[in-house]
Amino acid sequence: MVESTIKEEPEQSKKAAKKAAKDAVKAAKKAEHKAAAAGEKGAQETAGDEAGKDYSEGLYGVTKMIQSTAKHADRNFVFVHDLSGCPKDSLVWVRGRVHTSRSKGKQCFLVVRQQSSTVQCVVAVNDSTVSKQMVKFSGSVPRESIVDIKAVVIPVANKIESCTEQNLELHVVEFYLVSAAKAQLPLQIEDAARPEKSDDPEALRIRVNQDTRLDNRVLDLRTPANQAIFRLEAGVCKLFRDILTVQGFTEIHTPKIISAASEGGANVFTVSYFKDSAYLAQSPQLYKQMAIAADFDKVFTVGAVFRAEDSNTHRHLTEFVGLDLEMAFKYHYHEVLNTIGNTFTEMFKGLRDNYAREIAAVGQQYNVEPFKFLEPPLKLEYIDAVAMLREAGVTMDDEEDLSTPSEKLLGRLVKAKYDTDFYILDKFPLAVRPFYTMPDPSNPKYSNSYDMFMRGEEILSGAQRIHDPEYLVERAKHHAIDISKIAAYIEAFRFGCPPHAGGGIGMERVVMLYLGLDNIRKTSMFPRDPKRLTP
Amino acid sequence: MVESTIKEEPEQSKKAAKKAAKDAVKAAKKAEHKAAAAGEKGAQETAGDEAGKDYSEGLYGVTKMIQSTAKHADRNFVFVHDLSGCPKDSLVWVRGRVHTSRSKGKQCFLVVRQQSSTVQCVVAVNDSTVSKQMVKFSGSVPRESIVDIKAVVIPVANKIESCTEQNLELHVVEFYLVSAAKAQLPLQIEDAARPEKSDDPEALRIRVNQDTRLDNRVLDLRTPANQAIFRLEAGVCKLFRDILTVQGFTEIHTPKIISAASEGGANVFTVSYFKDSAYLAQSPQLYKQMAIAADFDKVFTVGAVFRAEDSNTHRHLTEFVGLDLEMAFKYHYHEVLNTIGNTFTEMFKGLRDNYAREIAAVGQQYNVEPFKFLEPPLKLEYIDAVAMLREAGVTMDDEEDLSTPSEKLLGRLVKAKYDTDFYILDKFPLAVRPFYTMPDPSNPKYSNSYDMFMRGEEILSGAQRIHDPEYLVERAKHHAIDISKIAAYIEAFRFGCPPHAGGGIGMERVVMLYLGLDNIRKTSMFPRDPKRLTP
Repeated sequence: MVESTIKEEPEQSKKAAKKAAKDAVKAAKKAEHKAAAAGEKGAQETAGDEAGKDYSEGLYGVTKMIQSTAKHADRNFVFVHDLSGCPKDSLVWVRGRVHTSRSKGKQCFLVVRQQSSTVQCVVAVNDSTVSKQMVKFSGSVPRESIVDIKAVVIPVANKIESCTEQNLELHVVEFYLVSAAKAQLPLQIEDAARPEKSDDPEALRIRVNQDTRLDNRVLDLRTPANQAIFRLEAGVCKLFRDILTVQGFTEIHTPKIISAASEGGANVFTVSYFKDSAYLAQSPQLYKQMAIAADFDKVFTVGAVFRAEDSNTHRHLTEFVGLDLEMAFKYHYHEVLNTIGNTFTEMFKGLRDNYAREIAAVGQQYNVEPFKFLEPPLKLEYIDAVAMLREAGVTMDDEEDLSTPSEKLLGRLVKAKYDTDFYILDKFPLAVRPFYTMPDPSNPKYSNSYDMFMRGEEILSGAQRIHDPEYLVERAKHHAIDISKIAAYIEAFRFGCPPHAGGGIGMERVVMLYLGLDNIRKTSMFPRDPKRLTP
Repeated sequence: MVESTIKEEPEQSKKAAKKAAKDAVKAAKKAEHKAAAAGEKGAQETAGDEAGKDYSEGLYGVTKMIQSTAKHADRNFVFVHDLSGCPKDSLVWVRGRVHTSRSKGKQCFLVVRQQSSTVQCVVAVNDSTVSKQMVKFSGSVPRESIVDIKAVVIPVANKIESCTEQNLELHVVEFYLVSAAKAQLPLQIEDAARPEKSDDPEALRIRVNQDTRLDNRVLDLRTPANQAIFRLEAGVCKLFRDILTVQGFTEIHTPKIISAASEGGANVFTVSYFKDSAYLAQSPQLYKQMAIAADFDKVFTVGAVFRAEDSNTHRHLTEFVGLDLEMAFKYHYHEVLNTIGNTFTEMFKGLRDNYAREIAAVGQQYNVEPFKFLEPPLKLEYIDAVAMLREAGVTMDDEEDLSTPSEKLLGRLVKAKYDTDFYILDKFPLAVRPFYTMPDPSNPKYSNSYDMFMRGEEILSGAQRIHDPEYLVERAKHHAIDISKIAAYIEAFRFGCPPHAGGGIGMERVVMLYLGLDNIRKTSMFPRDPKRLTP
């Protein structure tokens, strides 16, 4: 059968579809009621209410709400992406969503979607098993509804371009509505999944804006790109943990509710804690350092961190997932710097090798440039970066921090010169780092601290921390910090502490920049920013 | 050399030790100052300030604060637990803590500790390399200080019972203080590590109470039992994730700051959110369910959950780590129940097989009974548990919830009858479960919900959730819940949602009960309860 491309329906047919959908839901409710009344035995009933004999009765309809009554262990469910492995004419069960459907005389063509995979299904009237009532019912099920289909696998001669399964279609023999979607959806998956760069003027016209997406995240997350983004994000976490665990790191968990603001009280959320007040941790750093002082040697932690910063940019969230690590070293913080650098290299290789399908899926919708990296990673000193920027016309002091535009420009300069999207910037000016940063022993204007960048944006900040309590006090005083407020922090180092260094990575930023996406809200499943607390 | 048992020193020698420690710190500061003044070249200087020539000069002393000046790549550092693999007479470097030390004439015996491993070290005067000044210095370094030792590995004939490395000792040729501990510690590691069940009356006398431990957590965490507990805890998380990932689960991250109290407003912490108020999530359940409605099929999440409950018991924390999972199923929630049950079985096997050393280390201090489990896990119905309890003399209604004493008694009854510390209790009374719990289709007094227990305490609660929005409204109304307040929750199911079930596990409880410990504060690295917000 031929019906390979599903086009946007004209307005007229949209209205018809809406009416049909309403009819179906009505019929569905009726059938459900009937089924419910029938109890145990009537779990599945047909919705056929046309006059005349319906020889498909019992082979289609609305499934009673699945309440764990039956097990149906005999049904041979197959993943859509595994269908190509099924022999011709084999009988399979598929549970998926109605992605699109189109009725055409005595036939109904549906695309059924399961996560990122799609397959064309055909319900066609025949003389004995598929009645016109069954075809009508199938065509009236609202998009995004979940259906159970029993069907025969039929190879096709002409590729079905609109589906991921292009060499076969399913000829439906049973068709049940498992969970109905509203007839009117706040966004269409097709629209939300439309490629951002497209020559088709209609494609450019129909866009789903970010807030509509986020307001209806349950629908928005169903696009192939989003399915892929969050699977890749899970991969980033898995790789981070696995790479470190193999090297002897121990995972720890640090408290999010803390008694004192960790970084001096600015940008911190306050929590009511019984009769007291407390704060949400802006980083697990103190706790990672305590774990080091407590002999855990190498630790990492993955968890929520909170920033009460009123920044409404493409890369700031008020709550994000921190991938943090801290490590004791023997004599030089480069032991740690290199460990972190190699962790990124291994992570990039793991993503490239194990998530190629996800990267490709994101590339279908967004303009993804492959992520380039060197092995071992490129390491520059701050002073050299300043020289590169000056050569490109930027005016800045030696001890000045990188502005956001300079940071991005530097990323482009580095990419042009070294062909890498990842690099390490070492030896930041002491003046722009927190008080607990260890100064550079050979030049007091600099420090043993570093940032790491992906596509010109910072994704990790870290340093050797001062492990000597007296020196820590000295540096805190230099920063005019009230020593009494950080007494507990300093106390942690009075029982012997090895030299150590570490860093914190923003998970959502890593995913955003690895894929070259333009907004961090695309890589946070349920993002939080100053203006968004829902869903 | 013989000096195998380190005994508690009498008061007199304790005082002497304190004085020596003071002297050492004084000498250390002097030397450090000298070293600092000498800059780059004077990174290591001796602290010998006795009259007469010190032929050990340059072979001991206080290391200048390690600021990443040198790399010392030539130093062959060996882990203490790997020393037994070193050939006789080989020269090694070890960095560790002074666990105990005792001077005796021209010799100083130290036990050096590295995480859970200990080794005896001897500094003994000889004619050419080890001076009496060096021995004095070595003996005066405060306990818990970090030292670098260069030494010769010497096998011993008589086992050194007080150390984990029993067949060898280290003969020190160089000895440097890397990071000094205060001379007076708020607790002694030896005391904190003392076995709870001991016949020694002195052992029973010297105890470190829980608050002293937690107030000085950096020290307390250094005991072998604590080192083991938190490594095993990391193992629980790793196993949970790995077992689920292999089965196609995707890790997700859910927001901790939410706009509406998830479980009706009781026991929830309030956060100030810019000009608004928000709450800390009591569970990731809604978000897990949204991920299911968004086609992620099987998801898990590991993260902080918050309960503003003023419960000061052995098993309640205000912040803990939740191991949560949610899974779509085809027709029966037992598909999920069995997945969770098998996840526990695999986890218990993984702990038993891969963490035997940690379990043994905890057993050195606490009375750990091996954890018993059946494969597949034991599954009981609630109604049968009630019968068992009634038989044991408990009076309770069919639809009454389990009280804590009943829960514990049931654990003992099950253990006696089935010889398992883990079991699943299925089909809880509908009346004692939340409104979103799916009722049992065959008996409206019960529900498709379950708890799981370890050593008679609940560690997981879960259920099939109602995925039908209309029915969810009906059940919420039955519970007299204001529908407008849960509108967003209900809305998530209006776009088609597969039937699903899941559960939430308290990580700290799993570790506590697996090891048979008596207090959840032992398995939270930095516990939070109504009275504790520090460290």
